[in-house]
Amino acid sequence: MYVTIVYVSVKAEKVEMFKEVSRINHENSIREPGNVRFDILQSTDDPSKFVFYEAYKTLKDAAAHKETSHYLMWRDTVADWMTEPRKGVTYHGLYPIAHS
Amino acid sequence: MYVTIVYVSVKAEKVEMFKEVSRINHENSIREPGNVRFDILQSTDDPSKFVFYEAYKTLKDAAAHKETSHYLMWRDTVADWMTEPRKGVTYHGLYPIAHS
Repeated sequence: MYVTIVYVSVKAEKVEMFKEVSRINHENSIREPGNVRFDILQSTDDPSKFVFYEAYKTLKDAAAHKETSHYLMWRDTVADWMTEPRKGVTYHGLYPIAHS
Repeated sequence: MYVTIVYVSVKAEKVEMFKEVSRINHENSIREPGNVRFDILQSTDDPSKFVFYEAYKTLKDAAAHKETSHYLMWRDTVADWMTEPRKGVTYHGLYPIAHS
């Protein structure tokens, strides 16, 4: 399992729209064949801070996500709603063991 | 869904033992009734950096985890293997919508 944790900071007045557009991205992403998880989280301390927890069977599957129309639509729609560039950190998923 | 992302930094010589003890914690934690995810990740950049991605249906379920024997065993076993205190950050899980 190949995991990316993406940290996103959203302008306060765009938070609700961001949630809605991101929900659509979630619903499409979980249908990708290599997807294992595509969780969207909102900080308990600061509602303008979001995390995307994106787990794919392989690095190749994660890369394929970035070529999907729903990802590109999300990326372009929310680009101006962030207070700073989003940051993705990558991990090897040890457990559970997801076979490709 | 109530999510805690826990960041752990492990002494280099303890990494393999940490993985094994954490695997046992994972296997027991996913059997807890309120557990949704208990993923254990290792940084692609630095193998001494780990993330525990712990999702429970409710805050109450997450709190119950900390009273389990497997959590307490893990906590006490790995306490001296960390280079600094671990840090947990909490989130509301927006999507997927997990009903309690």
